[in-house]
Amino acid sequence: MAFKIGLLGLGTVGTGTVQILLNPAQRHPLVQELELYRVGVRSLAKPRSVALPPSLITTDLDAIVTDPEVDIVVEVIGGLEPARSLILKAIAHGKHVVTANKAAIARYGAEIFTAAEAAGVYVLLEAAVGGGIPVIEPLKQSLCANRILTVTGIINGTTNYILTRMQTEGGDFADILADAQRLGYAEADPTADVDGMDAADKIAILASLAFGGRIKLPEVHCEGIRQVSAADIAYADKLGFVIKLLAVAKRESQLPTESTEQLQLRVHPTLVPKSHPLASVNDVNNAILIEGDPIGQVMFFGPGAGAGPTASAIMADILNIAAILKVQQSGTVRSHGTPVLDPLLACSHQSYCTIVPIEALVTRFYARFLTRDSPGVIGKLGTCFGNHDVSLESIVQTGLRDNLAEIVVVTHHVREGNFRTALDEIRAMEAVSSIASTLRVL
Amino acid sequence: MAFKIGLLGLGTVGTGTVQILLNPAQRHPLVQELELYRVGVRSLAKPRSVALPPSLITTDLDAIVTDPEVDIVVEVIGGLEPARSLILKAIAHGKHVVTANKAAIARYGAEIFTAAEAAGVYVLLEAAVGGGIPVIEPLKQSLCANRILTVTGIINGTTNYILTRMQTEGGDFADILADAQRLGYAEADPTADVDGMDAADKIAILASLAFGGRIKLPEVHCEGIRQVSAADIAYADKLGFVIKLLAVAKRESQLPTESTEQLQLRVHPTLVPKSHPLASVNDVNNAILIEGDPIGQVMFFGPGAGAGPTASAIMADILNIAAILKVQQSGTVRSHGTPVLDPLLACSHQSYCTIVPIEALVTRFYARFLTRDSPGVIGKLGTCFGNHDVSLESIVQTGLRDNLAEIVVVTHHVREGNFRTALDEIRAMEAVSSIASTLRVL
Repeated sequence: MAFKIGLLGLGTVGTGTVQILLNPAQRHPLVQELELYRVGVRSLAKPRSVALPPSLITTDLDAIVTDPEVDIVVEVIGGLEPARSLILKAIAHGKHVVTANKAAIARYGAEIFTAAEAAGVYVLLEAAVGGGIPVIEPLKQSLCANRILTVTGIINGTTNYILTRMQTEGGDFADILADAQRLGYAEADPTADVDGMDAADKIAILASLAFGGRIKLPEVHCEGIRQVSAADIAYADKLGFVIKLLAVAKRESQLPTESTEQLQLRVHPTLVPKSHPLASVNDVNNAILIEGDPIGQVMFFGPGAGAGPTASAIMADILNIAAILKVQQSGTVRSHGTPVLDPLLACSHQSYCTIVPIEALVTRFYARFLTRDSPGVIGKLGTCFGNHDVSLESIVQTGLRDNLAEIVVVTHHVREGNFRTALDEIRAMEAVSSIASTLRVL
Repeated sequence: MAFKIGLLGLGTVGTGTVQILLNPAQRHPLVQELELYRVGVRSLAKPRSVALPPSLITTDLDAIVTDPEVDIVVEVIGGLEPARSLILKAIAHGKHVVTANKAAIARYGAEIFTAAEAAGVYVLLEAAVGGGIPVIEPLKQSLCANRILTVTGIINGTTNYILTRMQTEGGDFADILADAQRLGYAEADPTADVDGMDAADKIAILASLAFGGRIKLPEVHCEGIRQVSAADIAYADKLGFVIKLLAVAKRESQLPTESTEQLQLRVHPTLVPKSHPLASVNDVNNAILIEGDPIGQVMFFGPGAGAGPTASAIMADILNIAAILKVQQSGTVRSHGTPVLDPLLACSHQSYCTIVPIEALVTRFYARFLTRDSPGVIGKLGTCFGNHDVSLESIVQTGLRDNLAEIVVVTHHVREGNFRTALDEIRAMEAVSSIASTLRVL
């Protein structure tokens, strides 16, 4: 008996998924037990690159998620609505759900997973983070015995592409963004990518899985890459760093306790030492570095987007559900209640993680100041930082820019709140024209 | 109801596993449903770094694998016997098996998996390849919809450590091996590592999973790193390469066919371009690069050995079995026969993969010759290669060594059989003192 798939959306990822379903040779034999049963689209008139019988295709998406014949609903339409409502309706009708929708899961995960648990169905989302890179399932299964300490990812391909080109070409952000838009690597409205919101959605999902608690998305501290300039990249390079947009989720306390988890959760451009495994992740590639006890550091690397990789992840989720349904349907006697869900694949967090405010973060900073070349300005900066317990590793006048003296500061590990208070004071100084950039150092 | 674990072996990995079982806090809650029920050791007298009730420990390993109470047998004693017999006896008694034993699985996999399928039990082996790096389970599950094209790995930590030190220090193989032995990174008898046999075991296992067929271990072409010299590493560096011991499994034909798979399967030192993701995998780290359709390239990176990482992998397998048993035990009615195994986790290959002989391999070569500095020797070499259809990219006299002229050749893609025939002819030339090394180029 085949497992019947109801596919919502026939864009890039939907088409990639159909192409695998229609070409099972040399893939796992279980692919042949899947039946593409219905495909929901917005417009029947739109030309498609896959040939499907017209009887399969419908614009009535509601009819798919409520069809008693459908076993698994695959949602690849994206966006918040109607995706959220369709997912919830599919769950209410007892369908398992596979989705690539990071935005909907990051915002409505609590609602969706609560409904899924009550209905005894799976909601899998490997494709939501890192495109084709296996990371959700390894977190749930392969690393499940670990106490996860940190998840650090380059999980937005557009910004990594822009930063890589800024690094190799020496260009400025605005020019390369424009070129990336022309080439299709950045969207016409690049906000979600370049301002870090897409990465924030994804790290919220990863943190929830890694630390076993729900995440309130607005609590993710989020800075994008608009402030990163060619000058910063050049100075970072001299100091032995590359600049990457990192998404970081970190257990604040290293000690096991009974209370809810205290987490750092943040997205920001970061100076990464060139020898670090994430430093050489370039172009549109993604990578997720996970540190756990007792595993140490493991990294997952690959294409962070694209039809093929994302379809690979979608199909993995479909096949995992099909495999477990085969086990369940063959199981030993049990006469009542909903079936028990696989405790590694299902998501049953009840409590919320506590997110530590960014002011409490202890990290190293890089900052670049433009100052009027008055004698003693380095001394003034140094004194001000010292007054606020911000210990400096180096403070260097790097040259002149626009008739202003450019001063680059790198701190030791300091409390972010202290650093910001010092910056506020520095910003008010007569001798200081502007704070051109402040970046964290990994 | 807890799942009862019978642990065979309390060495490094066994101890690491016990430490996770005894410290479940902040790990997946399912860890708390596992019960360490029996531990089999060779000697009761040996001091242990974990405190266990004496009643748990026994030297009677047979009693563990036949105990009706035991659900999952964990084999971490290593070696071929009694590991193989204990695994088979456990299977015969209906136990699921988790093992880190690459040597036994690479040799007796067919026997073991046939028995497991007949008995309706799982034999999981994440820890057998890449230490803690999730790669077996991602291959089985996350990448299962892909048509795998190549698996390329740095999967032996000892040789990678030696090659990394040769690269950074400029030292020769024998000296650094001796130092690695002193430091505990290489064993007193380093044969299995430095001659590539350990990597051959592991790539045979990965190939079997990636290409869905059994592998005859002696068919893996296997060369170690003893012939790699400081001179080769220095020349490779100048040419833009690092030298790594790669294990490669590659589908020979890219076209889906109905026949059995034709594979390249080989372990050898290889010139890897410095920009390649595997080039920066250093020290005892492992990495496995998998290329599939439609995913493209993904890489898994991390610690290839050690108690913690390996225990993490062992525990993942245990928890996966426990999770699926919970599903199975709660399943719908079925009154007869053995339970259906999860088709992604179980291993049911029947046919053997066909391994293409190494002579048929088409690859690029690097070779280094020591010749008597007679005029025209470069011409003689060039002519000989040309006569055998071996097209050269470069042929350079790099200098003098031991009063001999040193000539380094890099070929285009050529058939290995042709290259070898040319080498046989060159070896017989009066002007040629020796062929110092021949290495393949990725």
